[in-house]
Amino acid sequence: MQMSNRISAFQCSPIRRLSPYARDAVKRGVKVYHLNIGQPDIKTPPQVIEAVRDYDETIIAYGNSEGRQELREALPAYYAKYGLSVQADDILITTGGSEALQFAFMTLCDPYDEVIIPEPYYTNVSSFAHSAMVTLVPVTSKMEDGFALPDISEFEKRITRKTGAILVCSPNNPTGHVYTEDELLQLLTLCEKHDIFLIVDEVYREFCYDGKQFSSVLAFEQFSDRIICVDSFSKRYSMCGSRIGALISKNKDVLANALKLAQARLCPPDIEQVAAHAALKTDDKYLVDVQAEYEKRRNFIVEGLKKIEGVKCSTPKGAFYLVAELPVDDAENFATFMLRDFNLNGETVMVAPCEDFYVTKGIGHKQVRIAYVLNTHDLERAVACIDAGLKAYRTQVMGE
Amino acid sequence: MQMSNRISAFQCSPIRRLSPYARDAVKRGVKVYHLNIGQPDIKTPPQVIEAVRDYDETIIAYGNSEGRQELREALPAYYAKYGLSVQADDILITTGGSEALQFAFMTLCDPYDEVIIPEPYYTNVSSFAHSAMVTLVPVTSKMEDGFALPDISEFEKRITRKTGAILVCSPNNPTGHVYTEDELLQLLTLCEKHDIFLIVDEVYREFCYDGKQFSSVLAFEQFSDRIICVDSFSKRYSMCGSRIGALISKNKDVLANALKLAQARLCPPDIEQVAAHAALKTDDKYLVDVQAEYEKRRNFIVEGLKKIEGVKCSTPKGAFYLVAELPVDDAENFATFMLRDFNLNGETVMVAPCEDFYVTKGIGHKQVRIAYVLNTHDLERAVACIDAGLKAYRTQVMGE
Repeated sequence: MQMSNRISAFQCSPIRRLSPYARDAVKRGVKVYHLNIGQPDIKTPPQVIEAVRDYDETIIAYGNSEGRQELREALPAYYAKYGLSVQADDILITTGGSEALQFAFMTLCDPYDEVIIPEPYYTNVSSFAHSAMVTLVPVTSKMEDGFALPDISEFEKRITRKTGAILVCSPNNPTGHVYTEDELLQLLTLCEKHDIFLIVDEVYREFCYDGKQFSSVLAFEQFSDRIICVDSFSKRYSMCGSRIGALISKNKDVLANALKLAQARLCPPDIEQVAAHAALKTDDKYLVDVQAEYEKRRNFIVEGLKKIEGVKCSTPKGAFYLVAELPVDDAENFATFMLRDFNLNGETVMVAPCEDFYVTKGIGHKQVRIAYVLNTHDLERAVACIDAGLKAYRTQVMGE
Repeated sequence: MQMSNRISAFQCSPIRRLSPYARDAVKRGVKVYHLNIGQPDIKTPPQVIEAVRDYDETIIAYGNSEGRQELREALPAYYAKYGLSVQADDILITTGGSEALQFAFMTLCDPYDEVIIPEPYYTNVSSFAHSAMVTLVPVTSKMEDGFALPDISEFEKRITRKTGAILVCSPNNPTGHVYTEDELLQLLTLCEKHDIFLIVDEVYREFCYDGKQFSSVLAFEQFSDRIICVDSFSKRYSMCGSRIGALISKNKDVLANALKLAQARLCPPDIEQVAAHAALKTDDKYLVDVQAEYEKRRNFIVEGLKKIEGVKCSTPKGAFYLVAELPVDDAENFATFMLRDFNLNGETVMVAPCEDFYVTKGIGHKQVRIAYVLNTHDLERAVACIDAGLKAYRTQVMGE
C-alpha cells in the first residue's frame, strides 16, 4: 500500500520528535527541563479557568464557523490598545495559530506555489507547507546580524511567477528578532511592487524587551489589502492547550476563501472559545508582569549560555526563544545524548535541534532552539546541565 | 493578487452557505427550523458538563499530539462493548472527525491522487479533498435501492494507479444507509486485491434503526493493515462543539505519518478532551434512549414527507439524515426561497441542497438533505412549512 510522498517527505517536528527519549529518561527517574517547546510555566489568568468552571451550556453545540460572535466582537478592543483598527468582520477565529497558518497557505497557494520565508523559521511551518504542497523559499538571516531582516534585495531576487506570499514571524520564533517598522515597510513595499501577500505571525506580540516598541503589520493600513496577520491566545495568556487563534485580514476575498475551509471543519472548539473570551478581560498588569518575567529569564539564559565555552548566541529582542550555536558536530545527536545518555545529578534538558528550522541544507546543524519558558531557578539548573552535557558529549562522543 | 485555484474551485459548504439568509430571516422575526445541519437538540450527558465545570488545571498547557493519554486509554473499553479490539496505541485523538478525514487524505494521497467514494456523500469531504488536491471519484448510489452499496464492479472499474483509498461512511451521512457485513467484506476484499486502503467514517455508529445490528469495519481483523476508521464524540454524546474525534488504525505506518501532521498542530484542544473523557462514562441507557428518540423522529419525518405530493425519500436505516427529492426545478433555489421569501405563520425551515453531495454533475439538483435532529413537535412544524413552502414555490417561482 502506498502512502503519500508529501508526508513521507518530512520527519516529525524537531520540537517533539525526541519526546520518546524524554519519556524514557523520566521513567529512569531523570528530571527533564523542557526547553524544546514554548510551553510557559506561567499560570493562565484565573478568570480564564473560572470561565471554564462557569460553563453553563446544556448542549455543547456547533458554533459559527467564523468563531463565537461575542469573541470576535470583543477582540477589536484588544487591538485598539495597540492603536490598531480591527473590526469583528476582519477576524476569523481558528483552532490555534497553526490553523490560521494552514488556512493562509491553502487560500493563497496551489501545489508547487512558493512562499518566501526568512530562515531559521518556526519549523512546524514546514509541515504545513508540505501538507499544502507549498514550496518554502528561504532567505537566510544570520546570528551575527541578530537575525535581522536580510537585505530586501535577497527577497526580491527570489520572487517568481509562483510566489504567493512572504511569511515572517515577529517577534520571531526561533530567533527573537522583532521586526522594525522600517523592515515591515520594506517588505510591504516589495509585496506591493510584485502584487503578492505578506503574512505576519504576531502571536508573541506582547513579548518585546529592552523597552522596544512592537510594530504590528496591522498598522500599515495603506497596504491592508495584502496583509494577513496570524494571531493566537496561546502564549499571551499561557493557554496553549486551548488552541484558539485567529486569522485577520481586511481583504474580504481572503476571508471569504478562508471561510470555505472554516466551514468545512464546522467550528473551532466551543468551550476553549469561552476561555479565550474570558482571557480578553485579563488585567494589563498580568501582561506587563509576564513580559518583565520573560525579560528577566532572557537576561538570565543569555548570560548563562555565554559563559559556556564555545557556545554562541544572539540576544533575542522578543518572543521567548533563542538560537544557540553549540561546539558539537551535530546538534540532534547532542540533544539525543542529553536525554538518553546523560544526566547531571539526576537532571537533564531537552532542546530542539535547529536543522529543520532551515530550508537550506547544511546550516543549522550545530544550532539548537532554546525556549526560556521556565523560571530562573530551573533555567539555572538547565544551563548547568547544558554546560556539563557539552563537556561529556565532547569527551564521550566526539572523542576530544 | 492571486489566490489559490484549489479554494476558488469550491463554494462554501451547502450545509452552511445559506446561513446569511437564515440570519436575515431571524432578524425579520421568522423562526427557522434548522434541518440543514446535524446539530442534535439532545442534551449533552450531564457528567460531561460537570467535568468541564470541575476543570482544575492552573495552566491550560499543550498536551500530547496523540491526545490526552487518559482519553486514549479509556477508549478501548468503549470499543470492547462492540466486541472490537482497539488498543490505546491504535488511536490518534483529532480535532473532530473532520481532522481525522483530513489526516487520512494527506497521509495516503499526493495531489491528483484519487479516492473512490459512493455518492451522495458527506459534502464537506469535498472541501477536504480540494484542500488536499485529492480527486474524488464517485460511484453513484441510488434512492430506489435505499442507497445501498452499488455493485462492487463499479468500484473496481474506477481503480487506477492513482487510487489511494475507498472512503465510505456507515451509518451514512446523508443517505442513512448502514453498510452490511457483506458489503464491508466486498469492499475490503477489493481493497486487498488492489492493495489500497479502506477508510470508514463511523461517527454515527450508535444510530441504527429497526433492530439492525451495526457492523464495524474494525471487526475485520484479517484486513486491519489497510483499514482506517474515523470516529467522533460529536454525535454520540451530542457534543459537536467540542470537536473531539479520532483516527484509528492498526497500521503503524499510517499512524506514524498521521502523527507528523498531529505534531505540527501540536495537540487537540485540552478542556474539550477532558469533556470527551467524561463522556465515556455515559450510562448505556443514555445512548439507548437517544437511539430510540431518533428512530421515533425518523419514522415521524419519513411519514410526514411521504404525505407531501411529489416528495420522494427512502427510509434511512441509520444516522439522522435523509435525502429527499422535491418536486422543484432547483433545490438550492427552493432552499433559498424558504429562507428569504417564505414563512408559514412566522416559521420556516433551512435544508441543505444536495447538488454538492455529488461529484457527478447534473444529479441531485432536486434533492435536499434533511437532518432530523429536532423533536417531533418541531419536526411537525417543519414538515408543514416544507409542504406549504413547496406549494408557494411552485406557484410563485415555477409559475405552475
